[in-house]
Amino acid sequence: MVREVFREESPSAFFYKNRQLAGFSNPTRALYTAVRELVENSLDACDLHGIKPDIFISLTKFKEVSGNVHIYKLTVIDNGCGIPREYVLKALGRVFVSSKYVLRQSRGTFGLGGTMALLYAQATSNKPIRVVTSTGGRYINSFKFYIDIEKNEAKTIEYNKILNRDGWHGTLIELYLEGNYRSASRYILSYLKQTATILPYARIIFIDPNGVLYYFKRTIEYMPRPPKETKPHPHGIDLETLKRMLRDERNKGLTLIDFLVKRFHRVGYSTASKFLSYADIDPNIRIGELNDNDIERLYISMKNYNGFLPPSADVLSPIGLDVFKNGIIKEYNPEYIDLVVRPPSSYSGHPFIIEAALAYGGDIPGEPGEIKLFRYANKIPLIFDEGIDVATKVLKNINFSIYKRPSDKPIALFIHIVSTKIPFKTLGKEAIADIPEIEREIELAFRYLFRRLSKHVSRIERHKKASKKFKTYERYLELIGYFSAKMVGREKPDVSKLLERIKERYKLK
Amino acid sequence: MVREVFREESPSAFFYKNRQLAGFSNPTRALYTAVRELVENSLDACDLHGIKPDIFISLTKFKEVSGNVHIYKLTVIDNGCGIPREYVLKALGRVFVSSKYVLRQSRGTFGLGGTMALLYAQATSNKPIRVVTSTGGRYINSFKFYIDIEKNEAKTIEYNKILNRDGWHGTLIELYLEGNYRSASRYILSYLKQTATILPYARIIFIDPNGVLYYFKRTIEYMPRPPKETKPHPHGIDLETLKRMLRDERNKGLTLIDFLVKRFHRVGYSTASKFLSYADIDPNIRIGELNDNDIERLYISMKNYNGFLPPSADVLSPIGLDVFKNGIIKEYNPEYIDLVVRPPSSYSGHPFIIEAALAYGGDIPGEPGEIKLFRYANKIPLIFDEGIDVATKVLKNINFSIYKRPSDKPIALFIHIVSTKIPFKTLGKEAIADIPEIEREIELAFRYLFRRLSKHVSRIERHKKASKKFKTYERYLELIGYFSAKMVGREKPDVSKLLERIKERYKLK
Repeated sequence: MVREVFREESPSAFFYKNRQLAGFSNPTRALYTAVRELVENSLDACDLHGIKPDIFISLTKFKEVSGNVHIYKLTVIDNGCGIPREYVLKALGRVFVSSKYVLRQSRGTFGLGGTMALLYAQATSNKPIRVVTSTGGRYINSFKFYIDIEKNEAKTIEYNKILNRDGWHGTLIELYLEGNYRSASRYILSYLKQTATILPYARIIFIDPNGVLYYFKRTIEYMPRPPKETKPHPHGIDLETLKRMLRDERNKGLTLIDFLVKRFHRVGYSTASKFLSYADIDPNIRIGELNDNDIERLYISMKNYNGFLPPSADVLSPIGLDVFKNGIIKEYNPEYIDLVVRPPSSYSGHPFIIEAALAYGGDIPGEPGEIKLFRYANKIPLIFDEGIDVATKVLKNINFSIYKRPSDKPIALFIHIVSTKIPFKTLGKEAIADIPEIEREIELAFRYLFRRLSKHVSRIERHKKASKKFKTYERYLELIGYFSAKMVGREKPDVSKLLERIKERYKLK
Repeated sequence: MVREVFREESPSAFFYKNRQLAGFSNPTRALYTAVRELVENSLDACDLHGIKPDIFISLTKFKEVSGNVHIYKLTVIDNGCGIPREYVLKALGRVFVSSKYVLRQSRGTFGLGGTMALLYAQATSNKPIRVVTSTGGRYINSFKFYIDIEKNEAKTIEYNKILNRDGWHGTLIELYLEGNYRSASRYILSYLKQTATILPYARIIFIDPNGVLYYFKRTIEYMPRPPKETKPHPHGIDLETLKRMLRDERNKGLTLIDFLVKRFHRVGYSTASKFLSYADIDPNIRIGELNDNDIERLYISMKNYNGFLPPSADVLSPIGLDVFKNGIIKEYNPEYIDLVVRPPSSYSGHPFIIEAALAYGGDIPGEPGEIKLFRYANKIPLIFDEGIDVATKVLKNINFSIYKRPSDKPIALFIHIVSTKIPFKTLGKEAIADIPEIEREIELAFRYLFRRLSKHVSRIERHKKASKKFKTYERYLELIGYFSAKMVGREKPDVSKLLERIKERYKLK
């Protein structure tokens, strides 16, 4: 009998080995993903702290590997909150760094993408990573480091402390990585354009390896208020997490009712006491005294109890229809634009909000009659894997024979979801799972926009018809009046008033 | 300035929190994924060791959670190689356990699925896992354990050693987990049916929560030879792995040429010495003496050198056309079946083989004219995420106007890839990335099958036409002969010989 040999590997080694899972599958996709992950970290560092983003990205050729594959130098600079000195290596140099029991809408989801970009970079270029950052304090900290993949930690090879004379805050990351810009450029550029569309309050500058500068300008000076941190909702918790939370608080002598109120979203004393009588558990039991059966009963009751308020969407930061509209107009200058925000909803204890827009004409790209979907989640554009996204599914199931739409122009349909937890299907964060609650809200948003578009198109058609009819009237009515009057021996009547009335009635000119 | 707080979590905690990435997104999908992961571990434990699989799966309701969601008891028993006592907790109780520098075709890819099933089970049911296993030695080992998610390790709560009187080898896993069988059943059943289709040498028994027994019988007694372990190919290595391999051997005083021959696939002394002269590195340098620049040059040279033989496909274990055909006939009993295996190919240093089959009629399901795709990778059926699979993409791009096919029946198209590394798009192992080399081979296989189908359909059409014509001849030829003969005053001729000749010529009955 052959014996299997089992060996263990570090999280970094695992993810590096399986890097295609996080979007680093080949030099084209990897270059796109690396740019994207660093830009998203930068945007979070601004957005989450109410700072209007100023992002500078530069890609330059460093040396050829083979064919169109080169080692590039990638630099991303932001004006965000900066990383405190003691956290730099932890935050960037290892995977699995994330916050524990609080939830907040953010672009980063898995605590993985930034580090993966760094791992990929050093593994393909054999060069260290440079990070320069300041939180706006007395010093600017500058690091050069390698990541030790086996140990899942960063090793500094150079550190400098510079006096921060101007109170600068932000982060610069510089790395060398293998990529194929020739084929990645269209993804990178469409990613940046879509980002600029949803963030008209950001300024983004990108200099590509050929020296071409792309400038996405800031067109509004206000920005949505940042998302807030929130505690988990009783419907959003699983047994394992509940047990860990209880274990953390075990030695503090808390009663169960105090624990629920302190650690959960939407649980006050009145709700907690009603809930505990439903669950038939003593509210004043110390949580250290709960046995496994109690915990299980507590968990199942939490799942089934309908008396909790739904999670509040106040903690979310949707883009806002004004800002969204401004962004779409800035980037596409459409002749028709309509937007909708759905009332907040929730799934498994996570609040979410759907915003959507429909536009056509101007610079909206595509074939006549085509509907092009632009997907966003927590202010990230999603470029790949459209085929398995919930919005694609919704769009496919809409019966378009009941809606009128312009047949001579492409339509752009924008969909944005914000949530404390986006149910991404993959680590690469490119497609959203078909959660029924989310599916429903997207469908309602789409139907609303298509209904209004349908009305708009009907109005245009009616207007066209009426205007054609009116032109006929205008030409012949005077003549008809003249002849009719003549036949009955009367004076020629004044038809101009009648024409005026028709004009007004059909709002012609 | 707000300060971000960074905390770290264990790999188990990370994956548990993000379990939708591995296919545990809701009670329906999670039940399907858990069954699948355990069955695949079982099949690997048999297949990889040349044992014909006997798999027993049972699901029973344990208690209700809410609506159609229940806690189920899942038991999977196999007759595989068993797990040595000292590896049980390591292999099942933590994520990231996998083999290091050897490659082998297997169902398990990420060393994650089985443990995720266990984590999900204990987290939703609060009950420990039971494992009973033997490698066929003196004892059968029986464990009950929990996984400590924070510590990423298993904690035994019960252990027994039983005398193995009959030399039994295999593994039993029993766990309790939340699921929705009502909606998961169609996925589980189609998964099992598709597994049985590709493994006619396996016997699979499944008893569902309603007590219904599904029996997939073994119809052939031989099986493909197991896959073999192989070393990495120079084109399949990345810089980081190369560095780790060099570090491992550093203190053994190996020369570079010895290192290459010892650790790489397809590198003998003659190839190694030609390669090193191309790379311009001294073959007799001790690997401990290589500096960073040397290693980088070594790596880039490995990538660009075209003198290595392509990776050998001998290590792979394709299913074989006989076995595949037997399985398809057993499960679908089609009226037409055709199969093809493509010559071995490779991508990034990984060998792969494509097998494909096309069938219609019998019990092939679907709408008339529909082409239903059945996807397999390393003998695993892929059920979800068809929309982003490379085979779907290939199928979409085929211009069907040039191929004839039966319009009154659905067609089943089977596609199977085996490789030492399947480029899965997601941790859930449901879709394959569009690697150009793989795309090409799939397209060639599909086109071959459609071309042959086209010929077959033409043949049938010709046959039908001829047979219709013949019937007309048969009916009138004698009469025509009779009248013609009468007109010229001759005897009535014998047309039966002529009819026989036509019958033979067109192979009519």
